[in-house]
Amino acid sequence: MSYLGVGISPGNVAVYHGGKMKVVDRRLRLTELLLRCSVTALAFLGLILIVTDTQVKKIFTIEKRAKYTNMKSLVFLVVANGIAAVYSLLQSVRCVMGSMKGSVLFSKSLAWAIFSGDQAMAYMSVAAIAAASESGVIGIRGEEELQWMKVCNMFGKFCNRGAGGVASAMLASLAMVLVSCISAFSLFRLYGATTQRPPNLAVVK
Amino acid sequence: MSYLGVGISPGNVAVYHGGKMKVVDRRLRLTELLLRCSVTALAFLGLILIVTDTQVKKIFTIEKRAKYTNMKSLVFLVVANGIAAVYSLLQSVRCVMGSMKGSVLFSKSLAWAIFSGDQAMAYMSVAAIAAASESGVIGIRGEEELQWMKVCNMFGKFCNRGAGGVASAMLASLAMVLVSCISAFSLFRLYGATTQRPPNLAVVK
Repeated sequence: MSYLGVGISPGNVAVYHGGKMKVVDRRLRLTELLLRCSVTALAFLGLILIVTDTQVKKIFTIEKRAKYTNMKSLVFLVVANGIAAVYSLLQSVRCVMGSMKGSVLFSKSLAWAIFSGDQAMAYMSVAAIAAASESGVIGIRGEEELQWMKVCNMFGKFCNRGAGGVASAMLASLAMVLVSCISAFSLFRLYGATTQRPPNLAVVK
Repeated sequence: MSYLGVGISPGNVAVYHGGKMKVVDRRLRLTELLLRCSVTALAFLGLILIVTDTQVKKIFTIEKRAKYTNMKSLVFLVVANGIAAVYSLLQSVRCVMGSMKGSVLFSKSLAWAIFSGDQAMAYMSVAAIAAASESGVIGIRGEEELQWMKVCNMFGKFCNRGAGGVASAMLASLAMVLVSCISAFSLFRLYGATTQRPPNLAVVK
């Protein structure tokens, strides 16, 4: 049975798979590297946009300053973005070193470690963005019944820049989700074993 | 190269893989079924707990009723739980039918569809829980700087029951994440192809 699902001569199975897999591996490594670099850049951009986001407003004689530490969810997003950026940077370095060596990931323990890390990062990023978006929605629209008032009509500049940071983190998160799919592919294909003998491969016992 | 990583006689590779894979497949199908049933039950339980959660409080002459529709994030969680419960129920039926037929998933398009659905459900569940948790944290601790006041000191019963619903949804989400890993395994192992010939398998051309 051909798992690649292409009409090939069974006699050339091993050779064909070898060539095909090399091309797939090269493309996959490049895509993974680009995505990991994007995660690093976008998560770092999101972090910078949020951390430097501040606005001062004078209400009568009281001066009010809006900053990201006022919202716990933005603090969580900053921490999550920081972790994702550093993690993706380290993984990018691993990808570059792997490409330079021309090696293909065949170690199951390493593949499991990368898969687990990527999954954790992807879910953490999505959770952080969901929490920040929830705060953002309350900030923009308020929760009337709970008397949680809108704040974005007062701190428009702060909210706009914060939204930019969340959008950047959202793109980073999307890239992280794609990366986690690639690492799942890299891990689980190691478990792909032919369950039937190709018809013209003679077993020598 | 043995992708199963076990010391076996290369001459028996195909046969051994076949037997081993059957055992793995059986266990995997059972685990998947149990997890999908758990998702259905827990997501439905979470939905019921949240939808039926209500508390009335009289403040002077004003009667205030707390219900899940007061929080947008709880409405999102209810919708997400409903979708996850129905989806997992349908997938459970597919698993049972697959088990009765004794068939193993070898269709790539079906595997891709299941993988995509599971990924979407897992991330949606995590996002819904993160958003609801964020609202919950504000409800319990408040956001002093933004003058979003605590509500759980006033609606303790409502908050406790709501927390139960979120906890149930959280367990459902965890099960959904595990299911998405299983479907990733089921899909990507179809792409696993041996790149080297086993040493004593003679290729007949």
